[in-house]
Amino acid sequence: MAAKGNDRQPKYQRIAEELKEAVRVGEYGPGDRLPGENDIMAAHQVARMTARQALGVLQNEGVAEARKGVGVFVRDFQPLRRRGVQRLARDQWGAGRSIRSADAGERELVVDQVVVSEESAPQAVADVLRIAPREAVCVRSRRFSLDGKPVLLATSYLPAALVAGSAIVRKDTGPGGIYARLAELGCGPVRFREQSRSRMPSRDEADRLRLGAGTPVIVIVRTAFADGGRPVEVNEMILDSSAYVLEYDIEA
Amino acid sequence: MAAKGNDRQPKYQRIAEELKEAVRVGEYGPGDRLPGENDIMAAHQVARMTARQALGVLQNEGVAEARKGVGVFVRDFQPLRRRGVQRLARDQWGAGRSIRSADAGERELVVDQVVVSEESAPQAVADVLRIAPREAVCVRSRRFSLDGKPVLLATSYLPAALVAGSAIVRKDTGPGGIYARLAELGCGPVRFREQSRSRMPSRDEADRLRLGAGTPVIVIVRTAFADGGRPVEVNEMILDSSAYVLEYDIEA
Repeated sequence: MAAKGNDRQPKYQRIAEELKEAVRVGEYGPGDRLPGENDIMAAHQVARMTARQALGVLQNEGVAEARKGVGVFVRDFQPLRRRGVQRLARDQWGAGRSIRSADAGERELVVDQVVVSEESAPQAVADVLRIAPREAVCVRSRRFSLDGKPVLLATSYLPAALVAGSAIVRKDTGPGGIYARLAELGCGPVRFREQSRSRMPSRDEADRLRLGAGTPVIVIVRTAFADGGRPVEVNEMILDSSAYVLEYDIEA
Repeated sequence: MAAKGNDRQPKYQRIAEELKEAVRVGEYGPGDRLPGENDIMAAHQVARMTARQALGVLQNEGVAEARKGVGVFVRDFQPLRRRGVQRLARDQWGAGRSIRSADAGERELVVDQVVVSEESAPQAVADVLRIAPREAVCVRSRRFSLDGKPVLLATSYLPAALVAGSAIVRKDTGPGGIYARLAELGCGPVRFREQSRSRMPSRDEADRLRLGAGTPVIVIVRTAFADGGRPVEVNEMILDSSAYVLEYDIEA
């Protein structure tokens, strides 16, 4: 397998392109070990640094990931299909199911690191909830793992005056979760808005989600609106982008 | 301004955290120049390499971007609000407006690099369009820029047999674009599915979108379905993540 193609590209880029093409056509499947530095050096007659740079390209682009002392492997991307519309349907949480049970299918999403506290609202949250800045909010912060790997950090903010005394301020919110409890309080959500963007993680996010190099996060801010357009919850979610596909069905 | 905080963090990380906090509270606004290496060296009594690493953290996380020979600047994030539901409404393209005119507001999104060709369908496209592998598809590839900066690459695939002879195979598809023309052919879209994920860009994508370091792309694959659930178009979009917020409104 000799290097070919665009001569203006640096050698490591050409080798990286070849490796990516081999992944694309399935020569190396998810979880497979890619050729090592020695293999690449021999096959392409290049220096170790060039071989390392080529493998680095695949890691930086999120195509492959290194396991220390073992090698570089094709990423095993088995994303969660997060169905934006179906998961928020009233049939879901209204029937006592958790929203996330619509995503994972047969696989089990596990909650850990639940922290519930009362804090004064950050400016951005107060703006969305249309409460006074620094007014008290109930803050629910939790982490979700799939197959032992953390995939999602979620922090919900609700007006403290609204949820005081309900199960929303407890660790376990009960069947159907926050939305079922809000409905019992007479302000169940009738509409949601999700805004998402993507960026590289902060150090802390990368640690908590155990992200590999070259893995962005998706940030989703969801606002739940009760009847009359009253905002009752803001939820900021940080998703491991290598673990999720977001899906939305839209009518024309 | 002396370094303080968690002593276990490396020095450059602590300095980076301070700078990020200063950005967060607005001490440095979008487009502002951050302190340079010399400023940081003097303020924190650190070596040039440490100052450089601290600024590198902000660039890698997409908080700031370097302009060669000038300095490091807070990112000027004025995202396009891409309203997933409203933009695909029949009132939009049915009235001869382009879908993207729902996004940009007052700002002008310019199309360039339009290439229309007939190709044999890649496997993944054939699967979605439910046509035979390697059957002919019309491929429309274009790039969109905002304020002179490329923000979106889009490639649409439609069954060639379906669109032959229509304006869909021409560079200018006319008012209302592809969807208005499909409606004239008796198979206008009634439903869409958007699937999005995020990853680091390939070299080619980074070049074509002129992405700064530490900028992921969002990949949206949209399928348009006609009456009876027939898939009539697949559109793969590559978005500069620093330019877009994706918004979806959802009924409970």
